[in-house]
Amino acid sequence: MNRRIEIVEVGPRDGLQNESALLEIDQKLEFIHRLEAAGARRMETVSFVNPKRVPQMAGAEEISAALPRHTGRSRIGLVLNERGWDRCVQAACDEANVVVCATDSFGVRNQGASVDEQLATLRAIAAKRELNGGPSISLTISVAFGCPFDGEVSDEQVLKIVRVADELRLPEVAIADTIGVADPWQVRHRIELARKAAPNARLRMHFHDTRNTGLANAFASVEAGIDILDASCGGLGGCPFAPNATGNIGTEDLVYMLERAGFDTGYDLDKLIETGRWVSGLLGKAPVAALDRAGVFPPRAG
Amino acid sequence: MNRRIEIVEVGPRDGLQNESALLEIDQKLEFIHRLEAAGARRMETVSFVNPKRVPQMAGAEEISAALPRHTGRSRIGLVLNERGWDRCVQAACDEANVVVCATDSFGVRNQGASVDEQLATLRAIAAKRELNGGPSISLTISVAFGCPFDGEVSDEQVLKIVRVADELRLPEVAIADTIGVADPWQVRHRIELARKAAPNARLRMHFHDTRNTGLANAFASVEAGIDILDASCGGLGGCPFAPNATGNIGTEDLVYMLERAGFDTGYDLDKLIETGRWVSGLLGKAPVAALDRAGVFPPRAG
Repeated sequence: MNRRIEIVEVGPRDGLQNESALLEIDQKLEFIHRLEAAGARRMETVSFVNPKRVPQMAGAEEISAALPRHTGRSRIGLVLNERGWDRCVQAACDEANVVVCATDSFGVRNQGASVDEQLATLRAIAAKRELNGGPSISLTISVAFGCPFDGEVSDEQVLKIVRVADELRLPEVAIADTIGVADPWQVRHRIELARKAAPNARLRMHFHDTRNTGLANAFASVEAGIDILDASCGGLGGCPFAPNATGNIGTEDLVYMLERAGFDTGYDLDKLIETGRWVSGLLGKAPVAALDRAGVFPPRAG
Repeated sequence: MNRRIEIVEVGPRDGLQNESALLEIDQKLEFIHRLEAAGARRMETVSFVNPKRVPQMAGAEEISAALPRHTGRSRIGLVLNERGWDRCVQAACDEANVVVCATDSFGVRNQGASVDEQLATLRAIAAKRELNGGPSISLTISVAFGCPFDGEVSDEQVLKIVRVADELRLPEVAIADTIGVADPWQVRHRIELARKAAPNARLRMHFHDTRNTGLANAFASVEAGIDILDASCGGLGGCPFAPNATGNIGTEDLVYMLERAGFDTGYDLDKLIETGRWVSGLLGKAPVAALDRAGVFPPRAG
């Protein structure tokens, strides 16, 4: 048996959120269906942010309603606050990805809340779930390797949040390089620290390829024992703080690297590439994921 | 003291060779001077191929003549055959990078010679040097992780060539992922095997970012004890077998990853980015290296 690496597909959320072109709800649903046909089993399908602030994320309720529960598939909704949590519960998502960012500057500008205010929100959400039920909570710590406003982010800034996750017994914690600045040595070190701080949580890693270190960071993570990685089909998305930069690591690229090395991802690389090219065309841009441009190796027969 | 990683700048050779736009000799010289001002101490400046076959590489003699010997700087000429070696000696390059490719199909199509014929050429060149002197020889084994015609390349195909390098007591051997297919686990394994087969040679690694695994492979190499890596400023170059693909790993990106992690490369990242953007503009294309697009982190003050 090859070691299994779970890839959480974030194209429909983190990918589309950072594209200037807007997709219709039907197009988003087709994207989700194509991704599931290509092997995606966990996917961030929607974000419960205010669609007036983030028009790319409009239609969360409609999309969720069109995706009835399906054994073995998990559709994840992004949650930034209690209002988002309530919507996520109402929409019957399988999981909520609650985001807490690691710096006050980013928090105030992006979510209108300091780190402490976001942690209070996280506690309130966990308490609500304890009382009334709701989807499983996965915590993502954003800008955990660097902040566009504050610069470097310390180990302690990240660990402070990880400790709250441990205290709340959250089943999964992600450390996210939102603006794509991390190097693989730093990634390995943070993983070791986070594991000690939340020994009972699964760790998930989320990388952007803004400075081309994304797959190096993914490799370092897998070598450090990480079994769950986020990626975005087509390499969709960008970085609002670096207008010419690329987005999340491409699911195609990650699957290529892992499957070539003998890991099992459960994805069909050819279908992924087809989907990455299709959605890039829909957005009116050239494909960003390297596999969409270069094709697989060895080339397929025929 | 931080660990030193030596980066061999290959932009003027491997980079420009795979660009469709042709630069004038003066432009190539300016590129070389800018790179040395940015910290490049070893650089592939020219290729002694037939300029009728590879017009991008015209002017090797003129460029070499315009670069008088300079203490602490090494200008390297690419050599594919005895004629190339003679030209390299005549042009007084500091080093010759002799290429032997790992598969017959690639060798016959690219260099008009099978692997055994190329090894015979390598022996002839080493014998000539023994007799008449000449620059130091660094051997590069190309398509060592995959061939566009034959597909996968075995350990044994690579090791057969490494053993000849060992027998000839060549001081340096590079293992090159010419078409950008390697994964970092494979890279680590090949390094271990090559080190055993040529224990007295320095190992150098050469990666293309065709499938986005370039920096992951560089990270794996450094972790496996490699101290010398090739890279191309601006991420210049492409892959003749994947028309939409990117080229060598960008020197900027590699320097960013290494210096951020505390390694010493001797490069000035800001000057590299300036040079990468400049040469991309000269070639009429948008910068490919991620640092040229996204900028450094943390941002410079002022």
